[in-house]
Amino acid sequence: MAVKSSKFMVEKKEKELYIHNVTDIVSNEIEKSGIKEGIVTVFVPGSTAGVSTIEYEPNLIRDLNAMLERITPSDVEYHHSKTWGEDNGKSHLRASLFGPSATIPFKDGKMMLGQWQQLVVMDFDTRMRKREVIVQIVY
Amino acid sequence: MAVKSSKFMVEKKEKELYIHNVTDIVSNEIEKSGIKEGIVTVFVPGSTAGVSTIEYEPNLIRDLNAMLERITPSDVEYHHSKTWGEDNGKSHLRASLFGPSATIPFKDGKMMLGQWQQLVVMDFDTRMRKREVIVQIVY
Amino acid sequence: MAVKSSKFMVEKKEKELYIHNVTDIVSNEIEKSGIKEGIVTVFVPGSTAGVSTIEYEPNLIRDLNAMLERITPSDVEYHHSKTWGEDNGKSHLRASLFGPSATIPFKDGKMMLGQWQQLVVMDFDTRMRKREVIVQIVY
Repeated sequence: MAVKSSKFMVEKKEKELYIHNVTDIVSNEIEKSGIKEGIVTVFVPGSTAGVSTIEYEPNLIRDLNAMLERITPSDVEYHHSKTWGEDNGKSHLRASLFGPSATIPFKDGKMMLGQWQQLVVMDFDTRMRKREVIVQIVY
Repeated sequence: MAVKSSKFMVEKKEKELYIHNVTDIVSNEIEKSGIKEGIVTVFVPGSTAGVSTIEYEPNLIRDLNAMLERITPSDVEYHHSKTWGEDNGKSHLRASLFGPSATIPFKDGKMMLGQWQQLVVMDFDTRMRKREVIVQIVY
Repeated sequence: MAVKSSKFMVEKKEKELYIHNVTDIVSNEIEKSGIKEGIVTVFVPGSTAGVSTIEYEPNLIRDLNAMLERITPSDVEYHHSKTWGEDNGKSHLRASLFGPSATIPFKDGKMMLGQWQQLVVMDFDTRMRKREVIVQIVY
């Protein structure tokens, strides 16, 4: 067996785009595991959230929101709303585009991220909610 | 050796965007392998298809198509068509944006997908075609 | 231990979008390792570059640039520039969207890429720079 998995919860505090900086949590999971070298896959179950990396600073998050509005505007009608009567068509598309996971190599027990590069769970849904995040260490 | 690989075929039945829901096929591959915990990487060779997750329902697929038209419209001219005389410039760009693989953790022999989250191969090409899909289980 | 890691450098030669075709370099790393089957994760540290696959030909790269301008135009103001006085807000967003890594399965010592599919590091930054790229083979 060369896989070690754990999970943690994140909680969205706003109705619109919410970016969870999970870098420290995942760093801690790696440290706790005692494993020194491998890859870590961070995965979010659910079809309205994604995982990626970004420089986590408020102005860039505003720019991210503007980009998302360009790709998937809030003010167009989504066919998806006819299926469930929900207003989160854009959330699903954003999640699919970013993808549900990121894979980061680590060495000497530390993720090999750039200096300003943070690991983030992006909650695109239109309501406040808690989510489980999966951390899978392969070594 | 901690890798087990297999492959399967998918067949595009329409000229435009075609989304293959491969969740059950990949679930079966994991079950057949007898492996209980690990990550599965689903990869599509070729530069006009991608892999991601999405809630697989027809109205959302229509919304996905609208998003793709916003990013990579069908009615603009692509320089790529000068290289090969093909009309699939948009297909290449969409594939590159979504990326050729998705990595999903599994536990107790089951992928840890959300309730509505399906694993999909997105064929962006502009002609009907068969494709091979690679399933690599790392454990 | 079932992970083997190495790294190499790439150097951006233009101020705008620069696509490094790293297929041969990564193929060589796999060959040198002597490992025949597994997955290779290519990861770029830093928040203004991404990794994906694409058919690497100049006309398609021009189309890629046009798509990036549609999503994240060069001629809008980014809030991020207020934080650091830098002009690379668009670069950060593009990097986050493409993601910092790609995972490719390999068999018989060869990546299972399609015929025209190249593995690329996309440098979205607005200045010339060198970068380290991480290759992690899991087997």
